Amino acid sequence: MLKFEAKIAAALLLAASQSVMAFETLPAKPPVPADNPMNPAKIALGKQLFFDPRLSVDGTVSCNSCHNVMSSGTDNRPVSVGVAGQKGGRSAPNVWNAAFLSVQFWDGRAASLEDQAKGPILNPIEMGMPSADEAVQRIRAIPGYVSQFNAIFGGKEAVTYDNIAKAIAAYERTLLTPNSPFDRYLKGDKSALSAQAQQGMKLFEQTGCTSCHSGANFAGPAMQAGSGFYQKFPIYQNNDYVSKYNLMNDTGRHNVTKNDADKNIWRVPTLRNIAVSAPYFHNGSVETLDEAVRVMAKTQLDKNLSDGEVADIVAFLDSLTGEFPKQTMPQLPPTANRTLTAK
Amino acid sequence: MLKFEAKIAAALLLAASQSVMAFETLPAKPPVPADNPMNPAKIALGKQLFFDPRLSVDGTVSCNSCHNVMSSGTDNRPVSVGVAGQKGGRSAPNVWNAAFLSVQFWDGRAASLEDQAKGPILNPIEMGMPSADEAVQRIRAIPGYVSQFNAIFGGKEAVTYDNIAKAIAAYERTLLTPNSPFDRYLKGDKSALSAQAQQGMKLFEQTGCTSCHSGANFAGPAMQAGSGFYQKFPIYQNNDYVSKYNLMNDTGRHNVTKNDADKNIWRVPTLRNIAVSAPYFHNGSVETLDEAVRVMAKTQLDKNLSDGEVADIVAFLDSLTGEFPKQTMPQLPPTANRTLTAK
Repeated sequence: MLKFEAKIAAALLLAASQSVMAFETLPAKPPVPADNPMNPAKIALGKQLFFDPRLSVDGTVSCNSCHNVMSSGTDNRPVSVGVAGQKGGRSAPNVWNAAFLSVQFWDGRAASLEDQAKGPILNPIEMGMPSADEAVQRIRAIPGYVSQFNAIFGGKEAVTYDNIAKAIAAYERTLLTPNSPFDRYLKGDKSALSAQAQQGMKLFEQTGCTSCHSGANFAGPAMQAGSGFYQKFPIYQNNDYVSKYNLMNDTGRHNVTKNDADKNIWRVPTLRNIAVSAPYFHNGSVETLDEAVRVMAKTQLDKNLSDGEVADIVAFLDSLTGEFPKQTMPQLPPTANRTLTAK
Repeated sequence: MLKFEAKIAAALLLAASQSVMAFETLPAKPPVPADNPMNPAKIALGKQLFFDPRLSVDGTVSCNSCHNVMSSGTDNRPVSVGVAGQKGGRSAPNVWNAAFLSVQFWDGRAASLEDQAKGPILNPIEMGMPSADEAVQRIRAIPGYVSQFNAIFGGKEAVTYDNIAKAIAAYERTLLTPNSPFDRYLKGDKSALSAQAQQGMKLFEQTGCTSCHSGANFAGPAMQAGSGFYQKFPIYQNNDYVSKYNLMNDTGRHNVTKNDADKNIWRVPTLRNIAVSAPYFHNGSVETLDEAVRVMAKTQLDKNLSDGEVADIVAFLDSLTGEFPKQTMPQLPPTANRTLTAK
């Protein structure tokens, strides 16, 4: 426990030392790893793969099924539904602006978007491909993909699981939502936020929300790629919300590290586009944003907010919804003359 | 049986009388019903609805899930998968160029695209909404939809089940694939078809395929909207294909009319984009196009084609894949601050 408390203290100190940076606009460009530079052809390929249900064992689930970039970047469900109607244990994290997170998944178990993309394809209750090799074979059987991979990554055998993940990650790094009312306000357009939202913004900081939800993505201070910014949830466990919303059943990062100190530790999630990303929390147990604000204040800061304070903070959170970029629809390379997916 | 045989004879006579029209290019514009004129705002609304999984009970299935317009216009599966992993009994018909069909569904039970659109939303094994009223309530709870419906259809209560179907149908009438190699050939570009495809085209007619697969959509002669062009399948039942591919278990139009004469009667499906629409037939039981050609020749015309003849006809059918239009991706109006879908 000492180790855990030291971690929390360090995180709070770090946050405090960066308090001038509690509010930041969304950068125009995401960090890009040196071994996966972005280019238009790779992004276009990644978009096709992101939307291609043939990456799931029965051809019914694509990345976009749960991370819907035609809307909120999630599926707006409590937990996601994978192949054969199987339900996952956690709510789909938002893909919009995920490029700014230094680790991925609710428990931070992936160090990059590339690592993350490799997970759901092989997860038996998500896309359910039996192996990376079978996923690669599926894509290699589609001539229109083979030619793109070879041109983009070089060589004649460029369809690899690593390159599938690289292409998807390159596309995901384009999924940014700039120019939210909050960003425009911060850049000087004082009319971008209503008086209530401005009041909510103050309250958000005074209440202590910015201890964790700081930085450009409201997901904590900038960290090195692969290092996560984590927090315990719930910290205060002596309240009705914990049992009502089953907040402790899933022990979070503990599932990854098997370290007791990591029980109920989670990557701090982004708050950008939170108003359109209901339901809330790792298990999607809370249906409305106002209830989510109440729960967070109580479980993380032991504070009881009034209805008026909740409304003000929600008005502020509403201002974090950015502009969703106009996109063209991908056209997936065809499977000629025969079907690829199982019955 | 006499009545049925008379029907068949009439159909064959009709086809014979129109033999000069066995091959037609795809018209540039589809027929549009007088009570549902197309306009850009309605088409844009219909596209959003077509892609919106909130029209399914658990928020996981949209029209596009089974009729994927990013690819073949189908899901390339034997039978489709609806909510909760439930499998349907038939293969998803192609939405590309469905605007040219005078009746919809494999059994022709919908007289228009508007009628068709109302089916899957309420089908318990497809999108599974409990009632039209609940589907309407779901859409009425999304402010960005309400404003569009009211502007497009007029009035303050314009979100109705009829109008949902009208908007979707208006979008579907834009889903045309012109300029296939076949169309370019017919318009005078003799280089558009290979020698083998041209040979296949002759063979397609000589073998008798055009008895049914004639007209602009290779789905029979032009009929009045609401009147279907039907055919028995299989006609010749004394062959191994019938049991191997379970061709008679589903009695087709008989399920709709309960009339014995309609047993194993089906709407003649389009052959446009058939090369990218595997697997084949109402039950999706045949995985490859060459096998589908063999089965059709035997069951419909009692002919055994050689491998070379099959290859020639497949080369011709390959030429029926048209140009998929470039589309913008819709952005779905958000569900603000709360979730709409059930657990």
